[in-house]
Amino acid sequence: MSTVPTAWRPRPSAEPDEAVLNTVDAWWRAANYLSVGQIYLLDNPLLRRPLMRDDIKRRLLGHWGTTPGLNFLYAHMTRAIKDRGQPTLFVTGPGHGGPANVANAYLEGTYSELYSDVTEDEEGMRRLFKQFSFPGGIPSHAAPETPGSIHEGGELGYALSHAYGAAFDNPDLLVFAVVGDGEAETGPLATSWHSNKFVNPAQDGVVLPVLHLNGYKIANPTVLDRIGEEELTALMRGYGHEPYFFTGGFDGEDHLAAHARFAALLDDVLDRIAEIKEQAARTPQDELERPRWPMIVFRTPKGWTCPPEIDGQKTEGSWRAHQVPLASARDTPEHQAVLEGWLRSYDAGELFDDAGRLREDIAALAPEGELRMSATPYANGGLLLKDLRLPDFREFGVQVRVPGETIKEPTRVLGEWLREVVRRNPTNFRLFAPDEFASNRLQAVFDVTGKQWDAEYVDPSVDQNLVRAGRVMEMLSEHQCQGWLEGYLLTGRHGLFTSYEAFIHIVDSMFNQHAKWLDATNDIAWRRPVASLNYLLSSHVWRQDHNGFSHQDPGFIDVVVNKKANVIRVYLPPDANTLLATYDHCLRSRQYVNVVVAGKQPNPVYLTVDEAVAHCTRGLGIWEWAGSEVEGSEPDVVLACAGDIPTMETLAAADLLRRHVPGLKVRVINVVDLMRLQDAREHPHGLTDAEFDLTFTTDKPVIFAYHGYPWLIHRLTYRRHGHSNIHVRGFKEEGTTTTPFDMVMLNDLDRFHLVMDVIDRVPSLKSRYAGLHQRMSDKRLEAREYTRQYGVDLPEVADWVWPDAGQTATEAAGPMRDSTGGDNE
Amino acid sequence: MSTVPTAWRPRPSAEPDEAVLNTVDAWWRAANYLSVGQIYLLDNPLLRRPLMRDDIKRRLLGHWGTTPGLNFLYAHMTRAIKDRGQPTLFVTGPGHGGPANVANAYLEGTYSELYSDVTEDEEGMRRLFKQFSFPGGIPSHAAPETPGSIHEGGELGYALSHAYGAAFDNPDLLVFAVVGDGEAETGPLATSWHSNKFVNPAQDGVVLPVLHLNGYKIANPTVLDRIGEEELTALMRGYGHEPYFFTGGFDGEDHLAAHARFAALLDDVLDRIAEIKEQAARTPQDELERPRWPMIVFRTPKGWTCPPEIDGQKTEGSWRAHQVPLASARDTPEHQAVLEGWLRSYDAGELFDDAGRLREDIAALAPEGELRMSATPYANGGLLLKDLRLPDFREFGVQVRVPGETIKEPTRVLGEWLREVVRRNPTNFRLFAPDEFASNRLQAVFDVTGKQWDAEYVDPSVDQNLVRAGRVMEMLSEHQCQGWLEGYLLTGRHGLFTSYEAFIHIVDSMFNQHAKWLDATNDIAWRRPVASLNYLLSSHVWRQDHNGFSHQDPGFIDVVVNKKANVIRVYLPPDANTLLATYDHCLRSRQYVNVVVAGKQPNPVYLTVDEAVAHCTRGLGIWEWAGSEVEGSEPDVVLACAGDIPTMETLAAADLLRRHVPGLKVRVINVVDLMRLQDAREHPHGLTDAEFDLTFTTDKPVIFAYHGYPWLIHRLTYRRHGHSNIHVRGFKEEGTTTTPFDMVMLNDLDRFHLVMDVIDRVPSLKSRYAGLHQRMSDKRLEAREYTRQYGVDLPEVADWVWPDAGQTATEAAGPMRDSTGGDNE
Repeated sequence: MSTVPTAWRPRPSAEPDEAVLNTVDAWWRAANYLSVGQIYLLDNPLLRRPLMRDDIKRRLLGHWGTTPGLNFLYAHMTRAIKDRGQPTLFVTGPGHGGPANVANAYLEGTYSELYSDVTEDEEGMRRLFKQFSFPGGIPSHAAPETPGSIHEGGELGYALSHAYGAAFDNPDLLVFAVVGDGEAETGPLATSWHSNKFVNPAQDGVVLPVLHLNGYKIANPTVLDRIGEEELTALMRGYGHEPYFFTGGFDGEDHLAAHARFAALLDDVLDRIAEIKEQAARTPQDELERPRWPMIVFRTPKGWTCPPEIDGQKTEGSWRAHQVPLASARDTPEHQAVLEGWLRSYDAGELFDDAGRLREDIAALAPEGELRMSATPYANGGLLLKDLRLPDFREFGVQVRVPGETIKEPTRVLGEWLREVVRRNPTNFRLFAPDEFASNRLQAVFDVTGKQWDAEYVDPSVDQNLVRAGRVMEMLSEHQCQGWLEGYLLTGRHGLFTSYEAFIHIVDSMFNQHAKWLDATNDIAWRRPVASLNYLLSSHVWRQDHNGFSHQDPGFIDVVVNKKANVIRVYLPPDANTLLATYDHCLRSRQYVNVVVAGKQPNPVYLTVDEAVAHCTRGLGIWEWAGSEVEGSEPDVVLACAGDIPTMETLAAADLLRRHVPGLKVRVINVVDLMRLQDAREHPHGLTDAEFDLTFTTDKPVIFAYHGYPWLIHRLTYRRHGHSNIHVRGFKEEGTTTTPFDMVMLNDLDRFHLVMDVIDRVPSLKSRYAGLHQRMSDKRLEAREYTRQYGVDLPEVADWVWPDAGQTATEAAGPMRDSTGGDNE
Repeated sequence: MSTVPTAWRPRPSAEPDEAVLNTVDAWWRAANYLSVGQIYLLDNPLLRRPLMRDDIKRRLLGHWGTTPGLNFLYAHMTRAIKDRGQPTLFVTGPGHGGPANVANAYLEGTYSELYSDVTEDEEGMRRLFKQFSFPGGIPSHAAPETPGSIHEGGELGYALSHAYGAAFDNPDLLVFAVVGDGEAETGPLATSWHSNKFVNPAQDGVVLPVLHLNGYKIANPTVLDRIGEEELTALMRGYGHEPYFFTGGFDGEDHLAAHARFAALLDDVLDRIAEIKEQAARTPQDELERPRWPMIVFRTPKGWTCPPEIDGQKTEGSWRAHQVPLASARDTPEHQAVLEGWLRSYDAGELFDDAGRLREDIAALAPEGELRMSATPYANGGLLLKDLRLPDFREFGVQVRVPGETIKEPTRVLGEWLREVVRRNPTNFRLFAPDEFASNRLQAVFDVTGKQWDAEYVDPSVDQNLVRAGRVMEMLSEHQCQGWLEGYLLTGRHGLFTSYEAFIHIVDSMFNQHAKWLDATNDIAWRRPVASLNYLLSSHVWRQDHNGFSHQDPGFIDVVVNKKANVIRVYLPPDANTLLATYDHCLRSRQYVNVVVAGKQPNPVYLTVDEAVAHCTRGLGIWEWAGSEVEGSEPDVVLACAGDIPTMETLAAADLLRRHVPGLKVRVINVVDLMRLQDAREHPHGLTDAEFDLTFTTDKPVIFAYHGYPWLIHRLTYRRHGHSNIHVRGFKEEGTTTTPFDMVMLNDLDRFHLVMDVIDRVPSLKSRYAGLHQRMSDKRLEAREYTRQYGVDLPEVADWVWPDAGQTATEAAGPMRDSTGGDNE
C-alpha cells in the first residue's frame, strides 16, 4: 500500500465551503442521472434529443429505491477522502444497489479504465446504460464485475461481516459499510453488529457502519424504521456503537442544506474515529479498552429525487420506489413524459461536457488513483496477496514404521503445523471457528497466539488464551466466521474456517455465493486470484456419539459438488499425515473452496509422510500393503474407501478377509481427493476412464465405504464402465445416540458387514462362506449388545489395530477408545 | 384446551412464604441431583451405598453447565403455574440442556406416564440415568423424545422463533423461552428478538424470553456477558423489551435468599404481563400499541452447585463446567470422591422416599395434568391439530379447452384458492414469507387478511395490507419465517412458507433439523402427527433474468432428498391447475416436508383441473396429446420433463419434431412428483421397476429436461434398467443476466437443443437430419443475437403456444413475455 498515505489525518482546517458542497451536489446529481439511465435507457443517453419510445428498454428491470441514498453517501465520502487521504473501502449492503456502485465508478474514471469499451463519452455512456440488467450484461446489485466491491449484493445479510473481515489486520483502512434496513432484519446481519468486540483499535482497521434507513423493503416497511428513535438509539448503543443520526430529504428540504448538515456530521464522525485511533496508538496493548465506535443512522426517503407521486400515488419515500417506479414508461405516453422530466431534473447538460464526459470541476471532487473507492486495491485482494511462508509439513509428520502402528488425533497434529504457520505469518493469516477451535483440537496454535477478544476481561483464571489482538477468531456464529473469512480473503489474506460437519450447512448459502464469486472472477481479467477458502470440518458425522441425530449430516459435500468444478475441491484424508499434506496444498492454492473433512479422534496413521505426499498428490491409490493381491493376477474384489472411519473399517475388513478367506485376492483403494472419481471431462481432477478402469477394474465387485451419503459416489461414477459393480456403503440417516462402532453398524458400514458384502458380491464365495457370513452377523449382534450393556464398544473392536502394527505398537499416543470425555462440544 | 383454565390470573394474594420457597429449593435440588445422575451414573442411583467405580459410566458424555440454571427456572415457573393456573410451554434454548428437561419431566411424573419402564422408583431412576447419552438412548439436549419440548436443542439459534411460532393464535399461552447466551450470538437468534413486532397482545400468546447469562460457551466467554450491564440493558430495550435483571448464586449466596428474590421478580414479571394482556383485551384492535414486553436477564454461575474448584482450577462459574467437570471420575479415586461429595450435597435421602419416589410434599409443587410443562399438549401439537376446512380447489381451476390455450401465472391462481383457505380457517393457518409474498403473486390473500404488523404505522397511503392481527407474516429473514412456521406447526396448526428458490438454502440446516424431528417422532408413540411443513418456492432459477448468477440455484431439492424418504416430498407442478391439485394435497398431509417449486410468470395451462388431479395423483404420466406415438408401436424417443420451464421447452420441442420429422414417434412424459422416479424400495412413492420400464421403456433414448441440477435425475434412476439411455438436461451453473429463453439456451435445455439432442440420440435420425440439426443450431444463434440487441426474446420464441391452442386462444391472461417490470424483488 505504498501509494496511499497513512491514514487517520486530523480534521482539515475549514468546513467544506459552499463551492465544495455544490460540487458534492453535482456529483450526486450525476450519479443519480447515471443510475436512472442504467435502469431505463437503451439509447439517447444524454437526452440530446427528446426522449422517444425506442430510447427506453423493452424490459425495465432493476431497482431505484436505495440508489440515491448510496450515491449521496458515496459523494460525501469521496469529498472526505480527498480532504483526509483516507484509504477507504465502500461496502454496499442494500439489495440491488448496483446502479450506484457502477455510476460512481464511472464518474471516478475507474469503470473506463477496467472496461475500455465503456468510454467516458456519449457512446460509452450508452454502453454503460444498455448493459445494466440486460442479457449478458451486469446484474442489478453489486457483483464481481463491479469495481471497488468485495461484496455480492444479491443475497442479503453479510455486509458487516465482510466489512470487518476486510478491516482485520489492515490498520490504515476505513471500511465504509452501508447496511440496508431490509438486510438489517436478517439473522446474520443482526448478530454481525457485535463484530466490534472482535476488532482491535490499534492493529485492525475501522468499520464505519451506516444504517441506510429508507424505511421500506419490496413491499413492507422495515422493522428498524418503525420502532422509534429511542429504541433504535438503544439498539445501536446496545450493539456497542455511538449512533449519529442524520435525517434529510424530507418535506422538500433544500439539497444544499442537507449536504451541509451531512458533511458536518461525517467530519465529526471521522474526527471521532481519528481520536480513537490516535488514542489506541498511544495505549499499551494490554490496556486497550473497547471504544464505543461511531455509526451513522442515515434516514432519507426511499427513491429520493424520483417523482414524488405517480398516478396520484405516493412514490418517493415509499416501497413503490423500490424497483422501477415507471414500469410502463415505454408504453404509456404520460409515464414517458414523467420519466423524461425526472431525467432532465438532474440537468445532465450541466454535469457532462459536449463529448459526454464528466466536467473537470466535478471530476476534481475525487481523489487520485487508488484512493478512489472504486479503484482501491483492497477490493481486488489478489493485488495485495502475498504467499504464506509455510513451514515444511514433513517435519510435523508422524513417524510410521508399520502402517497403523501409531495412533494420533489428526487435527491435533495439524494444529502443531498451524502453530508454525501462524508464527511465520503474523499479519495475514487467521483461523475462524464458532467456539469449536479447541473442541476440534487445534490448541497448539495457542502457544503462539490467542483468541482475539476486545470485550471485557474479568478473570485471568478462566479468560485463558484471550488476547486483544490474536489470530484465532471465535464467535458462536457460523455466519460470522464465514463472512469474516470471506472479507479477509477477498482483501488479499489467508485463512481457514473450522467447524462441525453437520452444522456447516448453516452457511450453505454463503458458500454458494462465495463459490459463485470465485467462478465469476475467473472470467474477469482485472480481478486477481485470491487465496482459497479452506474448511476444516471435524467432529464429523461418524463420531456424534452422545449428540445423536441432530449432529449427524455429511451433506455439505453434496452442496459443494453442485458448484462449478473449477472452483471446488473436496478432500477426505484418512490419517494425520495425509491431513498435513492436504492442508499444505490447500493453503498454497488460489481461487478454490477446499473442503477438508478430518476426524479429531485418535486414529491410526497409515502412511509415512512421504507416502502421504505421494498418495495425496495421486488423489487416490491402491494400498498394496493392505490388500492381498497377487501381482500378475486379477483381484477378486475391490475394497474402496474415502474418509477416516470408512478407511479404518475397510482395513479391518481386509484384515478379517485375510484371516478367514485365505487366497482371496483383495484390492484396497483409498480415495483422498473425491473429485478424482469424476470424469476427467467434468472435473479437472477427474481420472480418465483408462485410469479409472485400471484402478477399479471394469468387472470386479467394488465395495465402496464412503464417509457421506452413498449416492454421491454413484453420481460421481455413474458414467464409469464398472459402475454397475460399485456397491456403496455410506451414511443413511439412521441416527441415534451411539458408540463409535455402533454408529458404523447402524449404517452397515462396519467391518463385519463389509465382509458380509464381499461374500454376497463375490460369486465364488457366496455359497462357500455362508458360515463366515453368519459369524460376522453374530459379531454385529454381540457388539451391539455390548454397547447396550456397558456404553462402550466391544474391546476387540475398539482395540483393533492393523495386524502388522500390533507387533510394534509401542509409541501409541493413546487408546483408540477414549474412555472418558466427550467427543464434541 | 378445555382442560386448562383461562390464563392471566391476577397476582395471588400473598408472596410465597418460606415453606413454599423451601419446596422450590427441594425441587431444584432434586432436579439437579437427577441431572448429575444422568451424566455420571450407571448404577446406585440413590447412593444407597458408597459410590463405586462401576457405578460410574465408562464414557462420561453430556453437559452440566446450563442445567442447574434451567432447573432453577423450571422450579420457579412450576410454582408460579400452580399459583396462577397459567398454561405454559417451556422452550430450552441453551445447548445440551437435555438433563434438565428430562429431570423435571420425571419429577412431574410425565416421564413415567409416557415411558412406562422408567418408573418412579429406584429401578426407574437407574434406567433414567443409564439411557442418557448412552447408545440407543437419548441425546444430551432437548429432543423429540423429550416430554414437553417442541425444540430440538442440538443446533442453536431458533429458541425465540420457535417460541413466537407457538404463541401466534394461542392467546392463553405463555411461552417461557430460555435463551442461552451462547446461542444468543447466532444470527437467527439475534434477529428473532424482533419477533415482538409481529405478535398481537390480544389475539396471540405471550413469549417471556429469559436470557440465561451464565457467561461461558464451550471454551470462551459469551459476548453478552462481557459488554457491561449498561449496554446489555440498552440492547434489550433496543429490541423492544423491558429487561428485569436477576443475579444470583455468586459469592456463596444463600440459596433460599436467591429463591426469594427470584420468586418476587418472576411474580412482578408475570403481573406485568397480565396487566398488558388485560389492557389489550380492553382496547379496540385498531388502537392497540405495541407494549414493551418484559424479559428476564438471568445471571447465575455456569454449572451452579458443582464443585467450585477441581484440581485447584475454578470450575463452577467458568467454561470448565460446560460439559463433564469430572471427566476422569471413574479412573481417578480423588475425582470419584469429589463426585460422590457433589452428589451427596443434594441430600437425595431428603428428596426421595424409600422406594425412590419424589416425596409427596415436594411433588405437590407441580400443578395438575396438562398444566405441568412437561405434559402440556402445546408441546405435542398433533393432540391439538384440527383438519383445515379446505375449499374445493376444482372451483378455482383454470378452464382449459385445448392444452396450453390459457396463459396464467400459477402462483396467482393458487393465491385465489389460498384466500378462501384463509377465510375458512381464521385462527389456525398462517402464511410466512421474507418480504416476498406479493412478489410471489399471492396477493389475492389480501382480500381477506393482511400482514400482521405490530410496530409503528405512519402513513395509510403506503402502509397497505398491514394489520395488527393477520394471517400473513413477513420479515426479511428466512430464518424467522422457517422458525416461526416450525413453532406454529409443532403446536398443532397449519401453514406454508413461500420464498425465492435460490435463497431457501439459507435455511438448509433448519430444514435438516425439522426433517429429522419428523423422522424421529414417527417412532415415538406418544407424539401425534403434525401438519406438514409446506414450501412454495417461486421466483425460481429459470427466471432470474436481471438478478443474475447470485439468484440462480436449484439445489435445495438436492438437500431435501438427502433426508429420509418417509418425511420428504418434492413436487414440480407444470402449470396452474397442477399447482392447485398439488397444494391441496400438501395442506391435507401430515408429518412431511413438502417442497413445491412453481413459477409466478405467465405460463400455459395444459391440463383441465380434472386431468390435473389424475396427473398429480399418478405423480407422473404420459401426455398422449403432446406426443406422436402410434398405439401398438414402440416410441422412437421419449421426451421427459419436470418443472414448468422444462415442460414448456419439451412441448415446444415436440411441436418442432412433429413439424420437421414427420412420422417420428415421440412419447412425452411429465413428472410432477419427483420421488416417483426413485425405486419403490427406496421411497414409498417410487414406481416399481415394471411401471418404470413400461413408461420410460428400457431401451429407447430418453431426453429428460429437468428443473434442477441434472445429476439428481441420475441419482434417482441409476438402478433403473434403461438408465444408460437417459440423457438429462438441467441447470449447470452457467449463470449471468439473461432473458427467459437465453437462460434455457445457456444450459442447453431449450427447445432447439432438445431437438438436436433427439437427432443425436435416435440412430435412425442421426445422418438423415443433419440439416435440421444445423437449422436448430442457427435458431439458437439468432435467438441469442436478438436478446443482445433488444433485451427481450425473439418473438417467435416468446409468443410460442402449443399448436392446438393457437387456434382457440382467446382468453389468454396476458402475453407470455412480460414486456415491462421485473420478475423478482
